Amino acid sequence: MFVITSADNDKLKTIRKLQQKRWRNKLGLFTAEGEDLIRPEAEYVLRSGIDVEPDLLDAVSTLGSGTRVIGVYRQRWAEPTGDLLVYLHGVEDPGNVGTIIRSAHALADATVVLGPGSADPYSPKAVRASMGSIFDRPPARATIEQLDGHKVALDATAERQLRDVDVTKPVVLVLGSERGELPEGLEAVRIPVHADSLNVAMAATVALYEVALRMGADG
Amino acid sequence: MFVITSADNDKLKTIRKLQQKRWRNKLGLFTAEGEDLIRPEAEYVLRSGIDVEPDLLDAVSTLGSGTRVIGVYRQRWAEPTGDLLVYLHGVEDPGNVGTIIRSAHALADATVVLGPGSADPYSPKAVRASMGSIFDRPPARATIEQLDGHKVALDATAERQLRDVDVTKPVVLVLGSERGELPEGLEAVRIPVHADSLNVAMAATVALYEVALRMGADG
Repeated sequence: MFVITSADNDKLKTIRKLQQKRWRNKLGLFTAEGEDLIRPEAEYVLRSGIDVEPDLLDAVSTLGSGTRVIGVYRQRWAEPTGDLLVYLHGVEDPGNVGTIIRSAHALADATVVLGPGSADPYSPKAVRASMGSIFDRPPARATIEQLDGHKVALDATAERQLRDVDVTKPVVLVLGSERGELPEGLEAVRIPVHADSLNVAMAATVALYEVALRMGADG
Repeated sequence: MFVITSADNDKLKTIRKLQQKRWRNKLGLFTAEGEDLIRPEAEYVLRSGIDVEPDLLDAVSTLGSGTRVIGVYRQRWAEPTGDLLVYLHGVEDPGNVGTIIRSAHALADATVVLGPGSADPYSPKAVRASMGSIFDRPPARATIEQLDGHKVALDATAERQLRDVDVTKPVVLVLGSERGELPEGLEAVRIPVHADSLNVAMAATVALYEVALRMGADG
């Protein structure tokens, strides 16, 4: 059995390159680390101590504590369509992007659409935060103008409450960065809060729950 | 101005000890790192390059990238009372514990009660995930038997839906670990999901939203 014993190995070099967005875009690939994120559709998988020397795999890991397995996958992009979409407008934190992909999958089986200025959903942090939902529900890319449907922005300063949102299909839930601006001219709703400390991923989770439930109930 | 230039300094040694639960319990203190988590009630604060040499502060930091400031605070514990409580039954991940403290503060101004087997809410990871809510809404400790009120368990296998929960005050929302068991004999409700990937912090966030809103509406 062939075990990789040199850091000059092409597979290891590709994994290292894929830490950079530039290379992910160029190659159309991404990495997923850890046994719970390994899927059969991998281009290849390197297991620590089996396919590669542990130190060499740890050296290309993005987890602080090293890793037991890294898989390399082809990026997939969905069409930005469906009864319910989540549109991210300048959500820069990859952990939040991944968590929202996870929530959208779990609560609504919905596609997340990355608008300009949002973090790469195929970055290692986003992939990890998605906990596999990135495989089950690949994200889409679009500008908000390209999306059809009733667009609803989550906005802490809105008068209308989330519970009173109009859920005429299709619905596009629009979420912005914590300090950034939202697109203009949309219906805006707020989540009632007691303290101003809800981050964008928590807001998305609550909104997905409410809208998916209301859509189901209203047929 | 006195600048700490030795790792043998007592303040630095205390900060290092406070990474361990045993010492946090013994001293009744905890640390918070980063400028957004510094509060006036600190026992003391060490700023990088002002109070202490940067390398020495980085050496006691629990953030991978080093830190600009670390504060030491006295632990505070709330009474496990209120119209709405969140009870954590064996929630072992400190990030989830911190996120739930943040959600409970934001969505319901509610106290989180740590049951046996749950992570220490004053661990560095939990403090960071709470994003300051640990200061505004200190947690409580109790067993479930010590709590009064209508106890509702979030359980993916329940027949009844969260939306149909009885919100007669006081309500205790009971959350368990992802793989663990829940206490018996409670009303159980589930969040409707399309995929089995909602973690305990997301489930708590959704449940807090729903119950706080229903409690407010029902008076």
